[in-house]
Amino acid sequence: MNLYEELCVLVGKDKASINETILRHHSGDESHHAKVEPNVVVFPESTEDVQKIAAFANDRKVPLVPYGAGSGLEGQAIPIKKGISMSFERMASIIDIKPEDLTVKVQPGITRLKLNDELKKYGLFFPVDPGADASIGGMAATNASGTLAVRYGVMRDQILNMEVVLADGRVIQTGSMAKKSSSGYHLNGLFIGSEGTLGIFTKITLKLHGIPESITAARCTFSSIRSCVDAAASILTAGIPIARIELVDARSIKQVNHFSETDFPEEHSLFLEFHGNKSGNEEDINFVKTIVEDMGCGSFVFETDSLKRAHLWKARHDLHYAFSHSYPDLSILSTDVCVPISKLPEIVEYTRNQLNTYGLDGGVLGHVGDGNFHTALLYNSHDPDEMKKVNRFNRELVSYALKVGGTCTGEHGVGFGKIQFQKEEHGPALDVMISIKKMFDPNDILNPGKILPES
Amino acid sequence: MNLYEELCVLVGKDKASINETILRHHSGDESHHAKVEPNVVVFPESTEDVQKIAAFANDRKVPLVPYGAGSGLEGQAIPIKKGISMSFERMASIIDIKPEDLTVKVQPGITRLKLNDELKKYGLFFPVDPGADASIGGMAATNASGTLAVRYGVMRDQILNMEVVLADGRVIQTGSMAKKSSSGYHLNGLFIGSEGTLGIFTKITLKLHGIPESITAARCTFSSIRSCVDAAASILTAGIPIARIELVDARSIKQVNHFSETDFPEEHSLFLEFHGNKSGNEEDINFVKTIVEDMGCGSFVFETDSLKRAHLWKARHDLHYAFSHSYPDLSILSTDVCVPISKLPEIVEYTRNQLNTYGLDGGVLGHVGDGNFHTALLYNSHDPDEMKKVNRFNRELVSYALKVGGTCTGEHGVGFGKIQFQKEEHGPALDVMISIKKMFDPNDILNPGKILPES
Repeated sequence: MNLYEELCVLVGKDKASINETILRHHSGDESHHAKVEPNVVVFPESTEDVQKIAAFANDRKVPLVPYGAGSGLEGQAIPIKKGISMSFERMASIIDIKPEDLTVKVQPGITRLKLNDELKKYGLFFPVDPGADASIGGMAATNASGTLAVRYGVMRDQILNMEVVLADGRVIQTGSMAKKSSSGYHLNGLFIGSEGTLGIFTKITLKLHGIPESITAARCTFSSIRSCVDAAASILTAGIPIARIELVDARSIKQVNHFSETDFPEEHSLFLEFHGNKSGNEEDINFVKTIVEDMGCGSFVFETDSLKRAHLWKARHDLHYAFSHSYPDLSILSTDVCVPISKLPEIVEYTRNQLNTYGLDGGVLGHVGDGNFHTALLYNSHDPDEMKKVNRFNRELVSYALKVGGTCTGEHGVGFGKIQFQKEEHGPALDVMISIKKMFDPNDILNPGKILPES
Repeated sequence: MNLYEELCVLVGKDKASINETILRHHSGDESHHAKVEPNVVVFPESTEDVQKIAAFANDRKVPLVPYGAGSGLEGQAIPIKKGISMSFERMASIIDIKPEDLTVKVQPGITRLKLNDELKKYGLFFPVDPGADASIGGMAATNASGTLAVRYGVMRDQILNMEVVLADGRVIQTGSMAKKSSSGYHLNGLFIGSEGTLGIFTKITLKLHGIPESITAARCTFSSIRSCVDAAASILTAGIPIARIELVDARSIKQVNHFSETDFPEEHSLFLEFHGNKSGNEEDINFVKTIVEDMGCGSFVFETDSLKRAHLWKARHDLHYAFSHSYPDLSILSTDVCVPISKLPEIVEYTRNQLNTYGLDGGVLGHVGDGNFHTALLYNSHDPDEMKKVNRFNRELVSYALKVGGTCTGEHGVGFGKIQFQKEEHGPALDVMISIKKMFDPNDILNPGKILPES
């Protein structure tokens, strides 16, 4: 029997596929990385299915690659060593909402927008908001974050417990339902961000938040990208509990207006949002207004109307698509460095200048409240000269970030696109990570070729 | 040469001691656990000293037990298998404050009060506040928290990076200076809470916070302990960003008044605090006032005066001492369960009733905003009958907490007092923790006999 036939016997014909369209659908993500088709795609419907498939793959030493929404940006879901792609589209439901505990237990395949639609009925929301409508499992696997992380934190801050299937098919719980714990080692944190290389998530319990009584958004423009970031830094060090503070440079605003039919002034901008009670927000907003005006902001426009506000953030979240869909023939590389806030103004200015120096086209945008920003870099992958420039730009930017104490990835994860930077970033700690991988996955079947260099 | 002589040769005579008083000083902590003297106490002055001593201990297979302020409550610093106690009293300084990044790098021996005295000059503070003036290293080792965790989180939320010496003397960095990262495995979270069993911390970089513009504290009393906790749960689910919400039962208030010369009404009470801007706090306070009044609170008293406020929290933090110092002949067992907030009212009421059922004397108090509370249990360790009752009370309380999805320890850690509950709490995940320990410390020299059952 071949791999497909064996899997059909193992979990049932209806849960495995070698259909060409399905194989192709599971061969890539939203990144610039080359697609690779798996040999088989499986569709588990229960933890037991996942256990059986893991134990089988471990026994046969076949690569097993989890697949959520396919919205990753570093090739995490691409089965670069072929084998089995495990889709969670049939494990995508809400298991249990506990409004009184502000928690929800979900299956990994559910996407963040579907989850929030359901939570709205309870006056609750889940704050982690990457640009894409990613799956919660994928977001846990990459320790994703987004525009609200400056206030609510990243995935690792939002997960209480996970049910995880290990390489040999064993099932463990990584945490508890308690809001805090000092009991045992922090397996929760270790599995979050492990990109399917240490275990496979089958249930995830998330913290929830009440929808704030008062929400106000604002936009302000600056003549230089540097002053945008200087203003952001001042707002943060002033200790204002801002909920969102996003940099969108003039080039990106132009793309937003084109793609999202907005008419934002095409200048370097900060998009802001305040969550709290009415009078508290008013006081914070006035404080912020004086700060940005002192720093020479041009226009300062409020979006109090909830529809306009939603439109503003939809436009921001769609920025990656604004670039990719407008240039179907070009590839996009999205950088993701994160640095200490005091280093952000200089590195953002450096990035904008480097684009000009190399004659590359791209937008600079990001979650400046966390020191994290992206360059959406447009390039022609068939032009070897341009490829050289793009790779050099990327390497130099990462080296700069690491030199000032930052990281090569604030939220996209390593996948295989950033393996090249792991030694430079982690030094001797990388050997410890490799030992951990070997301990959890001695046969190297769990998403092989991701995060860690081949040893 | 004996152990002491060898260490003198290794790091110098002035950095090792077998003085009786010093050995005794490093034999215990603030818990009820029996004291055990180490064979030698070492006083490293640098990372290099720690590396040398670790490599030596690993080579000789001698237990190595880190010692911070000795304020632990589960015997973490007690060298139950003898060997070397490593004191950090000479590695207790601030290395680097970066106000613009809201971070500070410290040596592990510095205590939280000393750190905050220094930070005050910058208008900043470090929010993790266990009752004792613990060392930052010890707080990281136990993933400590305290009264402000409901708003600012626990140690694991506050640490950006650590320099850690491994059992074989290698040095690694567990994180970076970036506020968030998706790069590599989360070693930071794994080492935090590992109680010296996986590695020894030599440098710790902490997140800081601006001292809020406006701080208001309040006290309110209730006729039943249940209604105290019901009120706390309502305040939280209402989404009010409360900074502190502490339960202090009537028995504990009596002890506070006696020890701290306060005159708080001797009824079940909630101590509250609000951090924010002036108008935001006022709105939150009025909202909270209506909630607690609806729930039948007796008095509601504000402590706006900063001295009175400081006195209020000092009294709260000194509660453990209020009991221990008032009954020098009795021992104190402090329970530390943490449960989902919806289960808190019933388990707190259960606890109060169990004390009466068993005829035991003790206060019930805690960080109810996190679902975490303590029983300060007074008992005579020379009375076998009372010992039986105390242990049974403790076991039954932990089982109750685990049954409702909670943990045996919210903030004190496992040490050796809670090893007995690890299998029941973690199930198959405990085997994974044991494998991690074996991988990091194959010779079992790092604080042996803590956290994990002997395998």
